[in-house]
Parts: sequence; structure tokens; C-alpha cells
Amino acid sequence: MTKVFFSVAMSLDGFVGPVDPDREKWMEQWMKLQGWQGEQKFFRENLHIGEGGETGVDNDVVKETFERTGVTIMGKRMFDGGETGWPEEAPFHTPVFVVTHRERELWERPGGTTFYFVNDGIESALKQARDVADGRDIRIGGGGQTLIQYLNAGLVDEFTITLVPVLLGEGIRLFERLDTDRIDLVGSDARHSPRVTHLKYTVGSG
Amino acid sequence: MTKVFFSVAMSLDGFVGPVDPDREKWMEQWMKLQGWQGEQKFFRENLHIGEGGETGVDNDVVKETFERTGVTIMGKRMFDGGETGWPEEAPFHTPVFVVTHRERELWERPGGTTFYFVNDGIESALKQARDVADGRDIRIGGGGQTLIQYLNAGLVDEFTITLVPVLLGEGIRLFERLDTDRIDLVGSDARHSPRVTHLKYTVGSG
Repeated sequence: MTKVFFSVAMSLDGFVGPVDPDREKWMEQWMKLQGWQGEQKFFRENLHIGEGGETGVDNDVVKETFERTGVTIMGKRMFDGGETGWPEEAPFHTPVFVVTHRERELWERPGGTTFYFVNDGIESALKQARDVADGRDIRIGGGGQTLIQYLNAGLVDEFTITLVPVLLGEGIRLFERLDTDRIDLVGSDARHSPRVTHLKYTVGSG
Repeated sequence: MTKVFFSVAMSLDGFVGPVDPDREKWMEQWMKLQGWQGEQKFFRENLHIGEGGETGVDNDVVKETFERTGVTIMGKRMFDGGETGWPEEAPFHTPVFVVTHRERELWERPGGTTFYFVNDGIESALKQARDVADGRDIRIGGGGQTLIQYLNAGLVDEFTITLVPVLLGEGIRLFERLDTDRIDLVGSDARHSPRVTHLKYTVGSG
């Protein structure tokens, strides 16, 4: 059965993204959070950024996350950041639903990624995603605000936190503005590597 | 060699203690964080709060943490809370150094716990603790502010976060007011149970 999930890297002090206005400092913070991923063989192959790379627990997790994903849903802010940042062959290779107020025709990229723009909210995007998931899972891609919206709406079945042993001191917090009384979690798995720890949680309703 | 460490339970959203002024709500939050520990066989025996209890990963961690500890250092706030809360046979069974401005004679409890009151700061407390550690490790017991002071001073060798799959929404944050640039972490171990995940970090200096 199709599951709705998200998967993010989080610093030990709870941040899933940097906020520093200085571009160089921003990149430094971003690398602290995401650097582990750039070293993985599957990630490098998928983005065509180079041969080689590590195999092991981290690579397994990156690969499994990619392979289980039949559709991605993302917010406007993540799309706007990625539109100029992703390579022409965007790394999704599936349909992607972008929740936005802006109306726009679908945007097809080489390699099987097609972006659809949804103007009537997160539940509508999820419904449309279910129709094309084709037995695989639906990933809520981000950003943080979109993850929180889906969590608070009770629409997320499970999520993975890749806990990175760094302290950012400031940034975008994942677990904020959450309706905590409504969310029951079960810690269903933990996989540890020398770089990070991948924690999996199943969501119930409180 | 004697190591300086701390070990705390933290909610997935980063809190190590509740702040709710309502006593009932406070206890409810506290139980969400600490409830797993009360179920462990070793913890129950040590506090004489009942027969039975679980054995397994969580019990192993509680037992190992107790057994490695030759001395505990704590702040005034933790001591004040515990002075009335601990049973007459306080659960440490070792020397305990309390960092406080208040001068006071040592306080001996049945079962081997002796509290010493240190008025000249955290480094002095640590020095005195080293003198009596007797080959075992020194635990910084808390509260949160005391942990941060030792971390910021570069005096902690390693720590364990028991990550509890709950969201408190508010409370005392562990990783706040930290001199993040000075702290390098390596995630050295993770042990998972159906209740919680025990994450171990080794501290270097950045």
C-alpha cells in the first residue's frame, strides 16, 4: 500500500536548513547537513556528479529512499530554489506535484521528471499524487513548512530523520508550529554509520 | 582513563525537560521523557521502587551508565529539586559535587552518596571530582544549564542522548547558547530499542 513519508537531514540541535544571509556561510552550513549525502555512490550517479562514492548504510538509505518514491510533493519555496539549482535532468525521475498559488502549465524535464503545479492545496496535491504513485510511496519533499503542514494535517504515515552529528546553532527548525498533542510516534528503526544515524518513525494519531 | 560525560533523555524536538507551570501537565511531560527509564529493571532496583522491570538494550544502557560513574557533578537547580525528591538512600552511591554559591557542610546519605558543595565554579568541581573518581568516569548530571557550561568550556569528552519518540512542543532545550563553532562531534554509536534510541557522541574541539 502506498505510504506518505518524508526524509530529511537534521542537525543534532534540530535544524533542517541554514538561514545565514551570508551566501558563503549558508553553503558551509548546508554542507555540514548534506555533505554525507554527496559522498554516496547512488546519489552521485543519480545526479551525474562523478564516479565512485561510498557504499554502505548511508548509500543503502539514499538508494532505498529514491527507489520507494513514485511521486514527490513539494512546496513553492523548495521548487523555486531547485528550478535554477537542479541539473536539466532533474533528479526525481517521477511526477512531482508543486503546491503553489501560481498557475503554470506542466513542465517536463529530460529523464522522466514532470512538474505539475497544484493551486488548490496540500490535500488536492496528495490526491493527485496517489493517482499516479503506481504502487510506490509518496514523498513529501519539503521544504520544512510543507512537511509541517502535512504532519499537522495527519497525512504523513512515516518519516526518516538522518541525524547529523553537527550543531548549527541556528537555522530552520523541523519540529516547530506542530500540533504535538495530535501526533503519536513510534521509533521503528535506527541505522547508524560513521557519518550519521538514520532514524525512522511511524506516525499514529494522538 | 577517566572520561567526563553526560547522559540525558531528549524529545525528538530537542527538549530535555518540561517547563509547564501546571504541575499535572509538567508531570505528564516529564513522564513522556523519562517513562522508559522507570520501566527498566536496574533503575527500579536501584531506587527500590519495585520488583521486575524490563531487561534489554534500555536496561543495559541504564546499568552501564550507572556502573561507569565514579562521581557525579550537578548544578544547584538539580540538587534543589532532588534534595526533597530523592529517597533517603539517594540513587548515586558515590560522591556528588554540587556547584552552588551556597556554602554548606558535606551531606552524607545512607548507601554511599555524599554531597559536597563547591563554591568556586565548574572547573574546581571537576578537579575535585577527578581526585575521587577512582578510575571510573565523571558524570555531569545536569541540569541543562550545567551541561551547557561544561560543553562550552570544552570539558566534556562524550555524551549520550536517549532520543525519545515524542514531541513536547516546549520545554528546556539542551542545545542552546552553545558555542557551536568550538564543538566537533563524532557520532560514535547508536543503540535502538522499541522505546528509544541511545545515541553516543564523542566531543572534539573545532
